[in-house]
Amino acid sequence: MNEVKSDIEIAQECTMKPIDEIVEQLKVAKEDWEPYGKYKAKLSLDVLDRLHNKQDGKIILVTAISPTPAGEGKSTVTVGLGQALSKIGKNSIIALREPSLGPCMGIKGGAAGGGYSQVVPMEDINLHFTGDFHAITTAHNALSALLDNHIHQGNHLKIDVRRVVWKRVVDLNDRALRQVVVGLGGPIQGVPRESGFDITVASEIMAILCLANNLKDLKERLARIVIAYNFEQQPVTVKDLGVEGALTLLLKEALKPNLVQTLENTPALIHGGPFANIAHGCNSIIATKMAAKLADYVVTEAGFGADLGAEKFLNIKARYANIKPSLVVVVATIRALKMHGGVPKDELKKENVAALQLGIDNLLKHIDTIKSFGLPLVVAVNKFITDTDAEVAALQELCKEHGVEAVLTEVWEKGGEGGEALAQKCVTLIEEEENNFEHLYHLNVSIMEKIETIAKKVYGADGVDFAPKAKKQIAQFEKEGWGELPICMAKTQYSLSDDPTRLGRPEGFTITVRELRPSIGAGFIVALTGDVMTMPGLPKQPAALRMDVSEDGKAIGLF
Amino acid sequence: MNEVKSDIEIAQECTMKPIDEIVEQLKVAKEDWEPYGKYKAKLSLDVLDRLHNKQDGKIILVTAISPTPAGEGKSTVTVGLGQALSKIGKNSIIALREPSLGPCMGIKGGAAGGGYSQVVPMEDINLHFTGDFHAITTAHNALSALLDNHIHQGNHLKIDVRRVVWKRVVDLNDRALRQVVVGLGGPIQGVPRESGFDITVASEIMAILCLANNLKDLKERLARIVIAYNFEQQPVTVKDLGVEGALTLLLKEALKPNLVQTLENTPALIHGGPFANIAHGCNSIIATKMAAKLADYVVTEAGFGADLGAEKFLNIKARYANIKPSLVVVVATIRALKMHGGVPKDELKKENVAALQLGIDNLLKHIDTIKSFGLPLVVAVNKFITDTDAEVAALQELCKEHGVEAVLTEVWEKGGEGGEALAQKCVTLIEEEENNFEHLYHLNVSIMEKIETIAKKVYGADGVDFAPKAKKQIAQFEKEGWGELPICMAKTQYSLSDDPTRLGRPEGFTITVRELRPSIGAGFIVALTGDVMTMPGLPKQPAALRMDVSEDGKAIGLF
Repeated sequence: MNEVKSDIEIAQECTMKPIDEIVEQLKVAKEDWEPYGKYKAKLSLDVLDRLHNKQDGKIILVTAISPTPAGEGKSTVTVGLGQALSKIGKNSIIALREPSLGPCMGIKGGAAGGGYSQVVPMEDINLHFTGDFHAITTAHNALSALLDNHIHQGNHLKIDVRRVVWKRVVDLNDRALRQVVVGLGGPIQGVPRESGFDITVASEIMAILCLANNLKDLKERLARIVIAYNFEQQPVTVKDLGVEGALTLLLKEALKPNLVQTLENTPALIHGGPFANIAHGCNSIIATKMAAKLADYVVTEAGFGADLGAEKFLNIKARYANIKPSLVVVVATIRALKMHGGVPKDELKKENVAALQLGIDNLLKHIDTIKSFGLPLVVAVNKFITDTDAEVAALQELCKEHGVEAVLTEVWEKGGEGGEALAQKCVTLIEEEENNFEHLYHLNVSIMEKIETIAKKVYGADGVDFAPKAKKQIAQFEKEGWGELPICMAKTQYSLSDDPTRLGRPEGFTITVRELRPSIGAGFIVALTGDVMTMPGLPKQPAALRMDVSEDGKAIGLF
Repeated sequence: MNEVKSDIEIAQECTMKPIDEIVEQLKVAKEDWEPYGKYKAKLSLDVLDRLHNKQDGKIILVTAISPTPAGEGKSTVTVGLGQALSKIGKNSIIALREPSLGPCMGIKGGAAGGGYSQVVPMEDINLHFTGDFHAITTAHNALSALLDNHIHQGNHLKIDVRRVVWKRVVDLNDRALRQVVVGLGGPIQGVPRESGFDITVASEIMAILCLANNLKDLKERLARIVIAYNFEQQPVTVKDLGVEGALTLLLKEALKPNLVQTLENTPALIHGGPFANIAHGCNSIIATKMAAKLADYVVTEAGFGADLGAEKFLNIKARYANIKPSLVVVVATIRALKMHGGVPKDELKKENVAALQLGIDNLLKHIDTIKSFGLPLVVAVNKFITDTDAEVAALQELCKEHGVEAVLTEVWEKGGEGGEALAQKCVTLIEEEENNFEHLYHLNVSIMEKIETIAKKVYGADGVDFAPKAKKQIAQFEKEGWGELPICMAKTQYSLSDDPTRLGRPEGFTITVRELRPSIGAGFIVALTGDVMTMPGLPKQPAALRMDVSEDGKAIGLF
């Protein structure tokens, strides 16, 4: 067994290949990539055209049970499975989201995997990386400045300043910016109005970048963003303002996927990172499609549990990308399942098969959800040292009764080697199992019906209560012609219900939709089932207090 | 003569060398640089250590007359002179500031030279470049978030929320953010207070990055930033907050100079870009020092006229960098001098020797200023088609009477070839002329005396009026131990006086210092002689309205 080292120690000790070797491994043409430092590259969108006729690789979607503070290790399993596929001789690639700087400065953590299953260079990936998020922040705020300038310079579009819905963003946790008043100081400084800032990952432009199929699609989606309503309460869009070209210009490099590698030199595309509540929580369509052209197996993930990220991957991203996953991996840990079964955090190390059996209900619901999409699946048990044989046996038994295999993985501790059994199982299932994938709903049914379908089939709810405001909005949205868009549910990730305290597999509940938000550029209607935090705050002792740079320029305290 | 093409047409037609060839030309070691795309690189600070014993190249500082709407073409001459030095067989390099995105989206313009004297790839340089400004924006705003979080989480440092001086920044022109109220929404959203946003180039962190000699110096300067005052009106610094390590971590890549090339493949370091009013207006010390290690001749520039940028280069930057310029080039155009002589903009095409002679007084004052620093100099006349022989002769004659040569340059139209005479003259003057460079003032004299020295010797003022507030601040600053810092004057660039309407060479005036601001991290005291705009606004028809991307991914309408 390996000695226990921190993630950053492991990452800094690894031997990366120069990025041109990774590019060569993928057979990307010389003119189709650019280096960003020695270990990062951006791939041109021309790769997609050049490989247009090549058969797509198999897409494996990694999702998880409802998250708990015990952690399920979804990113780690995603990276580990990619490494494991390489280890068993398959041509594989990983497609992940880019991490946000805000949480990195706030609480210890990152989105680059863990242990011996990480993507590297992890410091770069967790700091500014190739600047994509900064480009999105800048494009978002340029639009805000152009909008406020339009109002200031005569307001030709008759925008109602009380009904400006486009806020500003920073890629930081900054609660003081949640609610602000701008434009103060008299007539030379613009028009005063209430507004606020979101974190960059909550920007509609982030969702747009991740759902665009190409540069033209990007520009068209940007043009459709609703930024405000005029005095007649009609939507005002980016196209009305005439700045979709400028925004596209600011985003043209950010639209190119970033290539890095894992600790074991498996290629990884890391690109985009929208929230999994008010947005769809998946890396970019372009990265996933390019990955499928570059390798035989693509391992990708979606945010939070299968009720959020996977549902949106399958109903939103897969639809816009016109892709079909070949297999779903549902990640669980014995620890997290015990929490779902009612065990408090400080007692998770003790064997508790009874609680585990209760908690497994959460996993089984997610399994049913994936099955309802017509997809084959496997459960990956991300092993912890404290797991007992009895617990593992109980989990595997219950899964088997449910017609699904649960495979133990030790990718955190052993890297790809620890995931070989899972990788083999994935390959077999893709070859042998039937795949009858279809979206859960058709776009031409009503907004209410789509929401009800998700609530009943994915969450296990008895039905949906629509608040009066929501009902009014639905009528308005359908009148605007937005009724045929897919739905993006904003719901707590901690429960299948809309009450974060109800763990396990709640029953006999309804979902309340309080409000809707049109993300017309991204191409979905957000249905809010509660307060959604779009600007996190910093904790009392932010991780930033421990950060530093060594004399030779190395990151300290990043993780 | 070349056909008249737009800057972007010329830039997109040029054949760039791959950046590794430029690196090779400079003999930079393989381990000391990283590519950022095919035509940009970042150079490691190790270059400075590795070449520690190599003799420094000659530094040529390009400055100008007081700017007018007619334009003097300082950046164009800087780039053209670098190209011309290469053309006459000298080993030369250029060191410039990075342009800000805000003005680029607002009004047509850029800071990458013009015509056949440009740095390329100009689209990249004018958009996100290598992300330095985004890193500075992020570090600045991370500090803001950490500061507000400190106040929210108990305010252990007893910060007076009415006396928080650290604002936030965006690299955009956004007047609506000049004055804002943050922290609204009740106790969970933080503590309400008045604040505002500056443009990124006005951030003290921008000035710090440009005045730091190395990573350690950067961190020490960041630690000294005054962010607020406590209830006892004592300064609170970044060190008190304990986040200088995190800020350094966010800036460690941005501290590395960026290497690009000119249209004629002359190497150019483009790094940092502080305002020339509330900051010192020069590219980074690290870039200038590195340039001097990499070539025999370094051509660099400072913002606005010689009364602002050059004064600060010589009194602030040269002092902290411990460098000595070998020669100063003062750029002028016949057109701009005629404006200084009272000719309105629409009559500049007509010959007007009388007005020119009046306007030349402005140039002569700047010449005197450079002489007072003990430096040799030459005037570069940036030729326009409308200039008449009589006008050129009058200008050369008047300069000659003043003991200075005025050399015609045609670098906009002809590139390096158009600057060969100037380049030859520069080489000769550096070899032949005496150089008795010294700073205009010693640091150990009082703040008032330093300001008076600059006002009298550089502006030609009779004296300085200190407003009561300024007097009180000076007493306070000297008590805090800040009395020995150099002065950074914030004055209108359009006049030698503090009244922007007084062109030419005003006489019989005094300068009024209204207020001072401590930039203790940067290492200077800002003296404000009027309102200084630290957040520009957008015009009625922003340049962004014309911007777009072509189907093959090329920038449209950027310039």
